[in-house]
Amino acid sequence: MIYFNCDYLEGAHPRILEAFEKTNGIQQPGYGEDEYSQKAIEAIKKHLKKDQRVKFIHGGTATNALVIATLLKPYEGVVSVDSGHINVHETGAVEATGHKVISLKGKDGKIQSRDLDQLFREHEESPTRIHEVRPAMVYLSQPTEYGTVYTGEELDEIRKICQYWDRPLFIDGARLAYLPRDNSLEKIAEVADIFYIGGTKCGFLLGEALVYNKIYEEDLSYMIKTMGCLMAKGRVLGIQFFEMFKDNLYFELGQKARQQTLELAEDIQEKGYTIEMPVDANLIFMRCPLEKYEELQQQFVFDVDRREKDDIIIRIAISWATSDDTILQLKKAL
Amino acid sequence: MIYFNCDYLEGAHPRILEAFEKTNGIQQPGYGEDEYSQKAIEAIKKHLKKDQRVKFIHGGTATNALVIATLLKPYEGVVSVDSGHINVHETGAVEATGHKVISLKGKDGKIQSRDLDQLFREHEESPTRIHEVRPAMVYLSQPTEYGTVYTGEELDEIRKICQYWDRPLFIDGARLAYLPRDNSLEKIAEVADIFYIGGTKCGFLLGEALVYNKIYEEDLSYMIKTMGCLMAKGRVLGIQFFEMFKDNLYFELGQKARQQTLELAEDIQEKGYTIEMPVDANLIFMRCPLEKYEELQQQFVFDVDRREKDDIIIRIAISWATSDDTILQLKKAL
Amino acid sequence: MIYFNCDYLEGAHPRILEAFEKTNGIQQPGYGEDEYSQKAIEAIKKHLKKDQRVKFIHGGTATNALVIATLLKPYEGVVSVDSGHINVHETGAVEATGHKVISLKGKDGKIQSRDLDQLFREHEESPTRIHEVRPAMVYLSQPTEYGTVYTGEELDEIRKICQYWDRPLFIDGARLAYLPRDNSLEKIAEVADIFYIGGTKCGFLLGEALVYNKIYEEDLSYMIKTMGCLMAKGRVLGIQFFEMFKDNLYFELGQKARQQTLELAEDIQEKGYTIEMPVDANLIFMRCPLEKYEELQQQFVFDVDRREKDDIIIRIAISWATSDDTILQLKKAL
Amino acid sequence: MIYFNCDYLEGAHPRILEAFEKTNGIQQPGYGEDEYSQKAIEAIKKHLKKDQRVKFIHGGTATNALVIATLLKPYEGVVSVDSGHINVHETGAVEATGHKVISLKGKDGKIQSRDLDQLFREHEESPTRIHEVRPAMVYLSQPTEYGTVYTGEELDEIRKICQYWDRPLFIDGARLAYLPRDNSLEKIAEVADIFYIGGTKCGFLLGEALVYNKIYEEDLSYMIKTMGCLMAKGRVLGIQFFEMFKDNLYFELGQKARQQTLELAEDIQEKGYTIEMPVDANLIFMRCPLEKYEELQQQFVFDVDRREKDDIIIRIAISWATSDDTILQLKKAL
Repeated sequence: MIYFNCDYLEGAHPRILEAFEKTNGIQQPGYGEDEYSQKAIEAIKKHLKKDQRVKFIHGGTATNALVIATLLKPYEGVVSVDSGHINVHETGAVEATGHKVISLKGKDGKIQSRDLDQLFREHEESPTRIHEVRPAMVYLSQPTEYGTVYTGEELDEIRKICQYWDRPLFIDGARLAYLPRDNSLEKIAEVADIFYIGGTKCGFLLGEALVYNKIYEEDLSYMIKTMGCLMAKGRVLGIQFFEMFKDNLYFELGQKARQQTLELAEDIQEKGYTIEMPVDANLIFMRCPLEKYEELQQQFVFDVDRREKDDIIIRIAISWATSDDTILQLKKAL
Repeated sequence: MIYFNCDYLEGAHPRILEAFEKTNGIQQPGYGEDEYSQKAIEAIKKHLKKDQRVKFIHGGTATNALVIATLLKPYEGVVSVDSGHINVHETGAVEATGHKVISLKGKDGKIQSRDLDQLFREHEESPTRIHEVRPAMVYLSQPTEYGTVYTGEELDEIRKICQYWDRPLFIDGARLAYLPRDNSLEKIAEVADIFYIGGTKCGFLLGEALVYNKIYEEDLSYMIKTMGCLMAKGRVLGIQFFEMFKDNLYFELGQKARQQTLELAEDIQEKGYTIEMPVDANLIFMRCPLEKYEELQQQFVFDVDRREKDDIIIRIAISWATSDDTILQLKKAL
Repeated sequence: MIYFNCDYLEGAHPRILEAFEKTNGIQQPGYGEDEYSQKAIEAIKKHLKKDQRVKFIHGGTATNALVIATLLKPYEGVVSVDSGHINVHETGAVEATGHKVISLKGKDGKIQSRDLDQLFREHEESPTRIHEVRPAMVYLSQPTEYGTVYTGEELDEIRKICQYWDRPLFIDGARLAYLPRDNSLEKIAEVADIFYIGGTKCGFLLGEALVYNKIYEEDLSYMIKTMGCLMAKGRVLGIQFFEMFKDNLYFELGQKARQQTLELAEDIQEKGYTIEMPVDANLIFMRCPLEKYEELQQQFVFDVDRREKDDIIIRIAISWATSDDTILQLKKAL
Repeated sequence: MIYFNCDYLEGAHPRILEAFEKTNGIQQPGYGEDEYSQKAIEAIKKHLKKDQRVKFIHGGTATNALVIATLLKPYEGVVSVDSGHINVHETGAVEATGHKVISLKGKDGKIQSRDLDQLFREHEESPTRIHEVRPAMVYLSQPTEYGTVYTGEELDEIRKICQYWDRPLFIDGARLAYLPRDNSLEKIAEVADIFYIGGTKCGFLLGEALVYNKIYEEDLSYMIKTMGCLMAKGRVLGIQFFEMFKDNLYFELGQKARQQTLELAEDIQEKGYTIEMPVDANLIFMRCPLEKYEELQQQFVFDVDRREKDDIIIRIAISWATSDDTILQLKKAL
């Protein structure tokens, strides 16, 4: 079987394992005070123009809950597109910290800035606003759950609205490596108050790098422990991020996968299949006749987005580890 | 500098890194459905006589919060000795899930079974009990925060009380490897309703194995995600636990460190120092004159338990990675 | 000014104040152990065929949060129609207890049973259900926020679905007095696992009577205190409910208001205005040309549901205290 | 039977019922926007020298949870004396909002300012403070659970410590009416950042008046709804507080009861009984031989603080409604 169902099927990039080996016997303090974490932070900071700080967390859902619980007051909620990860795939991790996820209907998995502005305005202008959850921060993922990408202009627009209404913008970059290189980490760092650089889906064993304005330093320092996110062996995350960011390995891996994805998408469309969402990162949502799907299932595993009468919409995920040969087999089968 | 301040100073046992290498390219499903996790579960189950289940979690604080939040109703609290990890070192991780930690004064870091029985009795017999938090489960760690160990009889006694009052018993085995081999995993599995086998402090990069009665299966399956504990690459934990439990490596590493600890403790006492707590695992709490401490600090790092007028009580932690040579240097310096 | 904007504009029915006077000096135990509360419970039980219990709570939002927090596990959510009170008007009171409100698109403010069944089915049949909040109980209000009423058949259908999927049904009866008498308390008691009889909006100073299956007794006994709902002077609620239920005063007041509402609605339609929602309790949602609205505002206060281009949709609320003369003035003005 | 077991045995002071009658038919807006609430706020403000705001809440436990949940961040805890109401008698209402109650050993039910200072200092100076709950606000009740009273100097001292460490001070005045008149509301308003004036135990049907620095206005406005504390008929609380504070009725009732208490305490001591706590408000903790207690039980009901070998310590509560004749009967029986 060949798996195209997600981007966390293999272990880690070999250089990460080598780095573990090389550093293994060296004694280091715990809780992120180790030298690798410090070096990883420096390496990441080279991509940042503002004075932002960095902490490493073990996984995405935990990071989402941590950030939202840290930034919101108990009567406040986080705004997300209806298809957002925190709204549908996290078993209430955000609500468990006491906060409502206020969902906005999206287009191609993206928040529409006009809807966002209207939501804030209606709340602030409502004479009965204290009877409603205050929409108090914005969550979006870049790329989105559908593999689509907010343009720089779209991000600027959302940023402007957030600033106007004085709401922080939080960007989930679980698949950040797969973004177009000219609309990537640097752009996100510019517009977001807090965001993370995904490791787990981009070639790490585990780990996300949370980057934030220094105003959140004190609160996050405590909250990371309160939320069960303070790793005793912080080095495990530091070593990986340093290895990936000391040169451009992180981006190289992502760009290769993105290129493969764009080419595969072109091929798919040439073969006459419909692609449901604009392809701009490492995911393809393809409409597949049921009969064809049954045939493909003999050889491949995909994630199923939804079933319709005669078709099934499948998600094809390419990753840092996908070989050209694997893609060739898929092309042939299609 | 030589570090004796904790048991998570190095990377992982070399066999773990080898196992990562060997399995790295193999595609596996996520979320603990990989074959390594399955094999690790089977290896652990060989030590269990009851029908218990196993899940892997990334760290100790998260596991404590997960278990307590899963087992308790909103008006219930967890009973812990006053020096218990959940009561003093977790930045309110348990309270953040809505539950009171009800602390009992301990002896040598251990819950006194008589106090436990009285606590339950007083609550149940109180006509105003609905005005108080219901003490509804028991948390203890074995070995304790002070490196002391509940005897088999003490565990049996606590178990009996828990059964009489129909309260689950949860055992935190973060340092389980360092227990005396005849009062170890098998005994804990016998008395606890839910417990975990510590990885992080026993030679892993990270990870704890949560073992539980099957009655908790459904709730834990959801809660592990709600609490941000469901790792996408579950293999990272499965590979480590399989490597440590497929033969007896886990216990061998722990026993070596325990032996070193017992011998060092004997040497310390022979040299005329006072040891504050019975030594039975991998921790020594030594009373050290301030002057001597200043001298030792030139060469060694210890954890400080507390300061008194002329003395300082330091904690010496031995681990799976501590070499005989290191210990020799400490002996000389003392 | 004449107020039609809600049903809690006056104090309480005079008989309630008389009852306070009569009992004022008599010493009674606190926390609902007083004799008036016991007598009120007996009076309410006469309307119940099943073995259900009763507790009195000070207000509706608190009751909603209390019930949902008591019945759900931390990873579970409550299903509500999108216009449900808990979903839009409670400032996240439910989410603050850790639970998601899962909203279903409604018709006339009512849950569609087919949608409910599908929601449960999709969750239970989903292979990735542990990544989603479990829809674990149903909340509806009868009458609804729009003053519409579920028919007996609709309630039976929802009940059947809840039983099939083994989910409790919780009914918010904040305006229960205003229901048609043949589809009222007795019917709700038959289909709901837990519900409440509204006092605040039906002529009380404050108070709601929570009626529940005895399986919830132990949990609610504690939770009522945990949630800040245990009144020291429980007599304040007991006296009111006894006075209203010792004979049929509660229903008489409601029926009078419902009759006034139905007649007013007929008159409104005869005058050529559009009514937006079927009128069956004590609320009328009337479409009003903007110009007319400005004129009415000189004399009357209404609640505004929403504004459209040329019209405004206003809510007219009739209550136990509305006089025929007041309604006559409104009729004239229309 | 004559009840001395608490101070909420009767209804309300007759003037309150009269005020309900007089205002009953008048239409008023809900949610505290009524004119009685506004007038009550003005009447209370006459006792305040600082620019403080007022909101009315239905009960004490709810007010405690509301204030603490509003002022604290998720990783912070509230400091209380070990016998504090929030620590022992509220079924985890504070923990249910996610916060630890950090208890300090008290003397006569009072926080010792030296201990408080040390607690803050140790936390702030600890290099591992992010592993501990941050002690971030102080809760005390005046009078205390034992009926003792902090002197003005003690309050000033605690205030100074709170200011030095920049922690808000929250005072629970559930029995404020019974304080010595020269160390009462005005003094509390001077030292506290937020406090409440108790109604329920001081002659109201229900209700507490929360007084707070205006910095908390926005947060409390929302939180009062989130926590289920926003009463639809806010007039019910406004009418009562206006009636009690428009002249000095509130204080007159309290002073009468305090005088009765002091005299009874003197009589008790003259008769040779031991009083366990300094008497300064409306509670007497009396040591009573078991035999005598059995005799008294034929005629009187007391609250039992604790049982010792041959004695029982009972709590005698005097209230605004206690008649001189009742006290005479108790004196005779003693």
